[in-house]
Amino acid sequence: MVTLGELVTLLGCEPGSVDTSIELDRIAPLGRAGPRELAFIAEPRYLSTLKSCTAACVLLKPEWQGDSPVPSLGVADPYLAYARVSALFDLGPAPEAGVHPGAFVDASASIPASASIGPGACVEADVVLGENVVLSHGAHVGRGAKLGDNCRLWPGAVLYHGVVLGDDCVVHANTVIGADGFGFARHSDGWEKISQLGSVRIGNRVDIGAGVTIDRGALDDTVIADDVIIDDQVHIAHNCVIGRRTAIAGCVGMAGSTVVGEDCTFAGQVGVSGHLKICDNAHFTGQAKVARKVEEPGSYSSGTPLEATRQWRKNAVRFGQLDAMHRRLVKLEAKLDALGEAASDDD
Amino acid sequence: MVTLGELVTLLGCEPGSVDTSIELDRIAPLGRAGPRELAFIAEPRYLSTLKSCTAACVLLKPEWQGDSPVPSLGVADPYLAYARVSALFDLGPAPEAGVHPGAFVDASASIPASASIGPGACVEADVVLGENVVLSHGAHVGRGAKLGDNCRLWPGAVLYHGVVLGDDCVVHANTVIGADGFGFARHSDGWEKISQLGSVRIGNRVDIGAGVTIDRGALDDTVIADDVIIDDQVHIAHNCVIGRRTAIAGCVGMAGSTVVGEDCTFAGQVGVSGHLKICDNAHFTGQAKVARKVEEPGSYSSGTPLEATRQWRKNAVRFGQLDAMHRRLVKLEAKLDALGEAASDDD
Amino acid sequence: MVTLGELVTLLGCEPGSVDTSIELDRIAPLGRAGPRELAFIAEPRYLSTLKSCTAACVLLKPEWQGDSPVPSLGVADPYLAYARVSALFDLGPAPEAGVHPGAFVDASASIPASASIGPGACVEADVVLGENVVLSHGAHVGRGAKLGDNCRLWPGAVLYHGVVLGDDCVVHANTVIGADGFGFARHSDGWEKISQLGSVRIGNRVDIGAGVTIDRGALDDTVIADDVIIDDQVHIAHNCVIGRRTAIAGCVGMAGSTVVGEDCTFAGQVGVSGHLKICDNAHFTGQAKVARKVEEPGSYSSGTPLEATRQWRKNAVRFGQLDAMHRRLVKLEAKLDALGEAASDDD
Repeated sequence: MVTLGELVTLLGCEPGSVDTSIELDRIAPLGRAGPRELAFIAEPRYLSTLKSCTAACVLLKPEWQGDSPVPSLGVADPYLAYARVSALFDLGPAPEAGVHPGAFVDASASIPASASIGPGACVEADVVLGENVVLSHGAHVGRGAKLGDNCRLWPGAVLYHGVVLGDDCVVHANTVIGADGFGFARHSDGWEKISQLGSVRIGNRVDIGAGVTIDRGALDDTVIADDVIIDDQVHIAHNCVIGRRTAIAGCVGMAGSTVVGEDCTFAGQVGVSGHLKICDNAHFTGQAKVARKVEEPGSYSSGTPLEATRQWRKNAVRFGQLDAMHRRLVKLEAKLDALGEAASDDD
Repeated sequence: MVTLGELVTLLGCEPGSVDTSIELDRIAPLGRAGPRELAFIAEPRYLSTLKSCTAACVLLKPEWQGDSPVPSLGVADPYLAYARVSALFDLGPAPEAGVHPGAFVDASASIPASASIGPGACVEADVVLGENVVLSHGAHVGRGAKLGDNCRLWPGAVLYHGVVLGDDCVVHANTVIGADGFGFARHSDGWEKISQLGSVRIGNRVDIGAGVTIDRGALDDTVIADDVIIDDQVHIAHNCVIGRRTAIAGCVGMAGSTVVGEDCTFAGQVGVSGHLKICDNAHFTGQAKVARKVEEPGSYSSGTPLEATRQWRKNAVRFGQLDAMHRRLVKLEAKLDALGEAASDDD
Repeated sequence: MVTLGELVTLLGCEPGSVDTSIELDRIAPLGRAGPRELAFIAEPRYLSTLKSCTAACVLLKPEWQGDSPVPSLGVADPYLAYARVSALFDLGPAPEAGVHPGAFVDASASIPASASIGPGACVEADVVLGENVVLSHGAHVGRGAKLGDNCRLWPGAVLYHGVVLGDDCVVHANTVIGADGFGFARHSDGWEKISQLGSVRIGNRVDIGAGVTIDRGALDDTVIADDVIIDDQVHIAHNCVIGRRTAIAGCVGMAGSTVVGEDCTFAGQVGVSGHLKICDNAHFTGQAKVARKVEEPGSYSSGTPLEATRQWRKNAVRFGQLDAMHRRLVKLEAKLDALGEAASDDD
């Protein structure tokens, strides 16, 4: 339970005439929020829904406050305000400090009293954990890894030896950071493995989803800068460098040694080839095939639109004839020009 | 070892003249099944193979029984009959009831005597398990999660706090259900995390493969209806709703808040954008890019066919000129029309 | 620390006049390697960088030795030589032999004294481990599985019951081998599960990344031949057969029963349909959609190139009109031919 007064304090906004003792149980969508629920409206197209809102309170832009039938708090960016207050309503588990007796912690590891090490978690030799670090059930921190303050590893997350996380990082369940990059040299009978001698260095406030893989570098480190956010099932290969505040959605795959700028966004399932340079502020729509460098900020896409399969088959066959079609077009143009000239000669 | 009599009982079919004491060691493909093996034939194109079959018994349609050189059982749907009897031949581990001494079970959790909790598994506070639930080695059930009867979590599967599974669900190894959805609000210096306050609700008889991620909802729950089947490495983002009996093949990625109807099928690597509505009975071929709503049942596709790279490069270049080609085509048509008219004027 | 003499011995190359007592701390990129570092040059285009190299020693082709300002070792294949010596510089954890008291090992399992079983790892009944096998923290080896000599499972890797690994295999963290294939028969109310009665058989020297899923077969086994290398997040469905030395990059998905030849390469995110046959020496570029059999060696591709989204939208619309455009082109050609003939008739 959260009071409106707590919201006012957190957001630093003007309470105006609202009763700050009003109690809120949770946040709910604008159209369904009831008398003990908080709602928010971030876009003008929902103003018609606002009219019939029955929430205890609504977060909205100051200029919309006159349209609200219920108490409201005016804030410059209601979506950001919603994000900020959402943590107050989070009833997720807040682990207690201490090392569970069922954890496996090497005596050489540096574990502050504020850290929480869950059952079955493993902390190898020479690991250094910051204040308030949470390692959930079964998490693994390999030899010599370093985690900054307030990092949280959810169950089954694995950091290989030597991986470095800054402060305030989140790593969701079963994500793997620091496995060997995919490096092999071909010989006559098969493949010679190249030992991956680099590590992974991750900045501050990096949020990493579940089932992600970020590989260790071959010689240098793989690097994820501050404030990068990474969704589930993303794969980042060895020696990639990801710039600050870049956001990577689910199932994106990035091949080795690619360098991505700041403030980029990758939608779901984008595939990025290796050894590319992507400039700042480049944005990629879902499934884009990024097989060349990108030097201009902007939005990029590839692929073909969804069609009924019967129709798609016809068009897809023509794709395979596209170059031939182009040649036929050129020929037609030439012929027609010739005819046109002949015709004008006739005149 | 299974007798033919057991098959007859399970399938409720007519034994006819077959010797129900015949013993079967396993199921084998029609062309290779030997004298202690069961085979099946589901499609008429394999009838020629049936002629030389040496299996102990064949499951087939009643009208094909005359063609079988070996004992047979006539059933309306031989493939379904094969599925039904396959469990009799499954020699996989059947865990014993009880809590392994190496498991971590909170005293407040409700664990029936029939449940089996493996070594290293973790059951947090206020969890409720149904009858015969199996939690394998290292599985994790977060605070307050509820599992119906006969659910089975394979090693390393993780259910976050509050996740709800119906009866008879399977969750394969290292799958993660209930991690935070990918929700952030942008501010000037980076991203503000939006606490994911919803959960994941999964119906009855839902089968989920290995390495899957299904995220918890932002405000409402992510919902998977009864009888949905999900292959390995599928990603389902927050607030998706998946309708009954829908089948989702490997590596499919679905962005947030998309609502999928009943009886849909998604082939491998299909990508679905967020906030879409997909009607019942919509089917998507492999790698389809579903970036718009789908309102008509049927099969949908996108992409281009596989070609030799040398040829593909030529066609792919032309794709980038497709709109220009179209304009050239329109121009040619106009010119030719003009010429044609001029020609007929000449006549 | 490694001496140049150790390198000479390992590579079996000619030391010439180099001082074999030179000590090397690590391997570094050619352009940055310092006086205690080893560098290598594998391609002539880096010869200009070689001129200013300050490494302790460079691995290079004998014909380039004259260009090196620092000591060098001449080898036929410098990249392969780099791979071979890289292991000497690997400071990753080398687990000690023995069973950790926090491991769960069934009494019936066969565990040689040279094996290393980490904390929280689980070895079920009837498992057979080869010499020097390493099972890291939390790894799972299901009932009756067999691992050859020198296999290593990283944390959280899961082998289901009956899975067989040859010698010298690596399985990175949270990879799952042997989960059920995605096999169901449709009935009127939903899906009947088909028990997956096969297993997974993996050859010698197979290297498997993190977060991979390889499913067990329905009746027969899924088979991965010797010397196959598999990157992170790859999915291989039931009953696939992968030929020797084939390399599969990150996020590739392969549907069931596909048979892949030897020496193939799959770049990232390639999708392969089921029941296909792919010949030896077939190569697929990133995101290729392999929905038909491949009978000729060579390189294959599909998809469209990356474009600015604004331009892509225009071209993508035309893709949906491609068959119609083709018909218009054919019509134009016919019309023009008719006009041409009419024109020549006029002459």
